[in-house]
Amino acid sequence: MVHTTHPGNIGAAARAMKNMGLTDLALVSPKFYPSEEATARASGADDLLHQATVYETLEEAIADRTLVVGASARLRSIPWPQVDPRTCAERVVKAGQKTAILFGRENSGLTNEELERCHYLLHIPTHSEYTSLNVASAIQVVAYELCVEAQTPRSQEEANLNIDFATGEQMASFFSHLEAVLTDSGFLHERKHEASIMRRLRRIFNRYQLEEGELHLLRGILTSVQRQHKKP
Amino acid sequence: MVHTTHPGNIGAAARAMKNMGLTDLALVSPKFYPSEEATARASGADDLLHQATVYETLEEAIADRTLVVGASARLRSIPWPQVDPRTCAERVVKAGQKTAILFGRENSGLTNEELERCHYLLHIPTHSEYTSLNVASAIQVVAYELCVEAQTPRSQEEANLNIDFATGEQMASFFSHLEAVLTDSGFLHERKHEASIMRRLRRIFNRYQLEEGELHLLRGILTSVQRQHKKP
Repeated sequence: MVHTTHPGNIGAAARAMKNMGLTDLALVSPKFYPSEEATARASGADDLLHQATVYETLEEAIADRTLVVGASARLRSIPWPQVDPRTCAERVVKAGQKTAILFGRENSGLTNEELERCHYLLHIPTHSEYTSLNVASAIQVVAYELCVEAQTPRSQEEANLNIDFATGEQMASFFSHLEAVLTDSGFLHERKHEASIMRRLRRIFNRYQLEEGELHLLRGILTSVQRQHKKP
Repeated sequence: MVHTTHPGNIGAAARAMKNMGLTDLALVSPKFYPSEEATARASGADDLLHQATVYETLEEAIADRTLVVGASARLRSIPWPQVDPRTCAERVVKAGQKTAILFGRENSGLTNEELERCHYLLHIPTHSEYTSLNVASAIQVVAYELCVEAQTPRSQEEANLNIDFATGEQMASFFSHLEAVLTDSGFLHERKHEASIMRRLRRIFNRYQLEEGELHLLRGILTSVQRQHKKP
């Protein structure tokens, strides 16, 4: 939960998670926490609430995650791959990876910058007349779908058990490296719209999760291009 | 909602319903209603809250209903036909009948007598360690499934209609271009296993299913790198 304002929502989210068998609640800069209201709303899930990890930045929170999904109510100007809660649950459960599902501020959700850290956006279907879900309710729906999916029997072959995917930290340094190379080569400068170009590149490379070995290959290419530039 | 104790739950339920396109909230002997707390938690669904019908007895509330479903957390001693939220939503939407879905008291749910008025019992799957869902959260889950079901016939292959994806031909020239750049930069030569590296790169970029505009962006980067190499 990213920058949550109302502690009641944090408590309700803890309860929703525990009901559905989830345990790992992470809070990025909550406005009020710990709080009596959170504990009251957590009801029998106060253990989960007290075990919650509090981070200062989203970056720290997702540093070791290999799959990052961001909940988003709005349709964004730059389309990012979008999944509904059921598809999200299927992918998360099948993948068996260290996953973070991000839920943003009560009033404004996740920022574009936060959403760009995600492999997918998660859109919960609503009626068009009133689309603004309470954040704990959104978590309830997603946790429910994860629980349903986890209880669905499946063959073991479906799981990607032996693949090491790139972590959030590795992806962050890949994008820094890419940006450095594109700046050196003059590409970003020529195009002027650096931010928008980097956003489109993030979209491409986050769309399908990179395996660790693939990331090393791409980093190797970047390094090789850099070395070439530096030759006199 | 039958004999609800906490007005906050009534407000949260109104919001959950409106989010999912439901409008007809019926309250059977709520303990505190109307209430400021209910209105606060309803947020933008206060209209739905104020239109809610209040009944003294369950009997009156379901008098004109042709299908009655009762939410129940516990397994009852007398087995009643039981459905999960998804099956419930399918039946309710398909049936197109005047349906009531009953949600009971915060602490004890619906009584056996109330459950016996139902055609089905509705059981929301939870983790075995903590099965007690908040009543508004239960309503959120069921309302969500109803919304998904109601939208299902329309949502066939929506997303991809307006996107121009890169053609096989465009991808082929992208890979030639990429290979040329990697050869110039010495990357492929250093690594020796040219074929295997190109295969891995194909795997990465094919997986993304690039849009035409994205392909142009990547080609632009390759061209910019090539130009840089050729500078004396």
